Amino acid sequence: MGCGLDDLLRVDLDRLWQWHIDMAKLGATENGGVNRAALTSPDIELHWQLASWARERNFAVEIDDYGNQFMRRAGSDPNSPPLVSGSHSDTQPTGGRFDGISGVLAAVEAMQVIDEAEICTRHPIEAVIWNNEEGTRFRSCDMGSAVYVGDAPMKYVLTEVDQEGVSIETAVDALRRKVNWASVRKLGTPMAAYLELHIEQGPILETENVDIGIVTGIQGTRKFEIRVTGEEAHAGTTPQSDRQDAFLDAVNIVNALREVFHDPEDKVRFTIGRFEVSPGSLAVVPGRVLFTIDFRHPDDSILQLLGDQVAEVCRKEAIRCSVQIVETKSAQSTLFGSTVQDVVKESASQRDYSFKYLASGAGHDARHMNSFCPSGMVFVPCHKGISHNENEYASPESLAKGTQVVVDSLLMMDRII
Amino acid sequence: MGCGLDDLLRVDLDRLWQWHIDMAKLGATENGGVNRAALTSPDIELHWQLASWARERNFAVEIDDYGNQFMRRAGSDPNSPPLVSGSHSDTQPTGGRFDGISGVLAAVEAMQVIDEAEICTRHPIEAVIWNNEEGTRFRSCDMGSAVYVGDAPMKYVLTEVDQEGVSIETAVDALRRKVNWASVRKLGTPMAAYLELHIEQGPILETENVDIGIVTGIQGTRKFEIRVTGEEAHAGTTPQSDRQDAFLDAVNIVNALREVFHDPEDKVRFTIGRFEVSPGSLAVVPGRVLFTIDFRHPDDSILQLLGDQVAEVCRKEAIRCSVQIVETKSAQSTLFGSTVQDVVKESASQRDYSFKYLASGAGHDARHMNSFCPSGMVFVPCHKGISHNENEYASPESLAKGTQVVVDSLLMMDRII
Repeated sequence: MGCGLDDLLRVDLDRLWQWHIDMAKLGATENGGVNRAALTSPDIELHWQLASWARERNFAVEIDDYGNQFMRRAGSDPNSPPLVSGSHSDTQPTGGRFDGISGVLAAVEAMQVIDEAEICTRHPIEAVIWNNEEGTRFRSCDMGSAVYVGDAPMKYVLTEVDQEGVSIETAVDALRRKVNWASVRKLGTPMAAYLELHIEQGPILETENVDIGIVTGIQGTRKFEIRVTGEEAHAGTTPQSDRQDAFLDAVNIVNALREVFHDPEDKVRFTIGRFEVSPGSLAVVPGRVLFTIDFRHPDDSILQLLGDQVAEVCRKEAIRCSVQIVETKSAQSTLFGSTVQDVVKESASQRDYSFKYLASGAGHDARHMNSFCPSGMVFVPCHKGISHNENEYASPESLAKGTQVVVDSLLMMDRII
Repeated sequence: MGCGLDDLLRVDLDRLWQWHIDMAKLGATENGGVNRAALTSPDIELHWQLASWARERNFAVEIDDYGNQFMRRAGSDPNSPPLVSGSHSDTQPTGGRFDGISGVLAAVEAMQVIDEAEICTRHPIEAVIWNNEEGTRFRSCDMGSAVYVGDAPMKYVLTEVDQEGVSIETAVDALRRKVNWASVRKLGTPMAAYLELHIEQGPILETENVDIGIVTGIQGTRKFEIRVTGEEAHAGTTPQSDRQDAFLDAVNIVNALREVFHDPEDKVRFTIGRFEVSPGSLAVVPGRVLFTIDFRHPDDSILQLLGDQVAEVCRKEAIRCSVQIVETKSAQSTLFGSTVQDVVKESASQRDYSFKYLASGAGHDARHMNSFCPSGMVFVPCHKGISHNENEYASPESLAKGTQVVVDSLLMMDRII
């Protein structure tokens, strides 16, 4: 890029920050965080606001059958697939203001910068909002990208419902009714490349005072749902010997699992995040427990070795109750190719931003995109690595630098891909 | 009683059973049980149906400030306090068709039998529906009777709200609007005696083929709420060493409590019925856990010895998190006086029903009434002792025999008290 163009293609820090402030109002919690489950009212409002922004600029808006929303600035070559950037807009129930949405807004800002500079790209450039990345409303995480590229079967889409019994189809219908000028995007429509900005969700960049994380890959994960079924009974009258207490058997299972997943090196990520006891009444011996296991490790052999023990441990420890084990997700470690990593490195270097190669502990939509087209990620520092938490924070300066790398990388990829 | 009167005062088995069938429709669950939380719509409908039944017979209807409902057949002595029978109408979330309501319907049937026989009693006779016995909508169990007799302070009534933030005052207002001909009953209005029929909720009467249980007392209980507070964190990125996982600390506490409450003799009743993990999301390290302890024992010294260890164990085992312990209920063992026990025994004997003296494992409103007026209970057999469960069952014959004892006992007490 020439020097004059560099200045013209400068990210507007204030505008980018204002977007973050405005989006954080949608699903805002009392404690300064965000609760914006996939395609609930605040999330649909967010989709509508960004689609309206796109319409004002004559960018096409498309929504696919899973509710992924694409906003496209046309390129000069009508046969060229788009260069895509973005992330997700849904959050954890007590999530923060940056996880996901920062990547969407980086893509939005990039499109606006490129548009205002009146750059004519060969490829179309798209901002994407992947649906249901957090997997809190509908069951599995990263499902928007998984369904788009074919990693998750379409039959999943048709049968899955949220806790109120609302299907994905119904939720997507609600989105389409609101963004009623969007056309239909066919799942699996090709892309030239995919670049996702995200907060690091770990402490490394901040601790080492680095501007840009160039993500080398994503650690593998296996997720399980365990259902323990006993028998409800009266807490005051039923002797221990007559009880089938689902809670106690579940605790026995948890104790045994903790031994299996104990790791002195502290590389194993083992989390029981959901643990629901029914009927959940003071004076009733619990009849049912549902709990989840979220297990991650960068080494696929450890992922297999430990993950394969889950079912056996559960069956062994459910002494008085029956137990069902379902593996809801299994993904090996992802390694991003060099194409996007090289472009990101070149972009950061040209702006004199410090950078560091690192692996992602968290899963991202880029995991699924990696098998579909050249893909990669830009990490920006976040305060103390705190994420999935209402106190999540990334500075306006960090976000602007990361977004600048997205702008420059998209234009660089337009030339080389 | 003379022989002719005995026949005239015969409980109508079919009518009593029909009442049970009709009441079980209010809050009926798919699995044949009942979910009828205190003063929710189905419970208010139940109050209205019984108040309407009373109005048709010119029985007075009164509701006190806590929502306890009284239906009164006048006596000949205007200065005489009422003989009261009844129980509660609320249920556990997956409760049965007999726990509580059978005692209310026994009192209703007794009043109808006495009324149809045109017996003029000296005392008024009342059927009572105590509010919020199960303690599932509003926090503590047996609160209707506790507030009535002054065991629970009135300030409790004013501040307590359900999980949706609805206060007891608001719930009672809704009841009053529906039963709009009820007059106001002053809390603590004297009673001459109290007799409560209830299913046994244990297996003894059925196993030993006994018709009537004469309840000698109620085992003591201590109940606790434990709140463990850690820090939410990302399940994929946060090392174990950086986590303050409220779930794991809560499980540590539970393991230690199980050791403390372990009892080879199996007399200790120790139950963790509620165990709520927040935010309850697959990929988020839990930041908060709330759980309850329901501990009961017939021996007050054991109740003290073990119960007093709860707080210390919780504090010791909450290694990475903070913990709050609140004792929400403490009740010593109750021993009923001989007055009502003797009357029940005499009534059962006169009808040639087999009877047995036994203690109650479960708590009942009669616990609070015992310090207020001569009180006692009649137990009827229930199938396999199953209770707090949708499969709870008592036979029409068992219920009719128990109700017959209530009829006869009320009339006997009218003569001797």
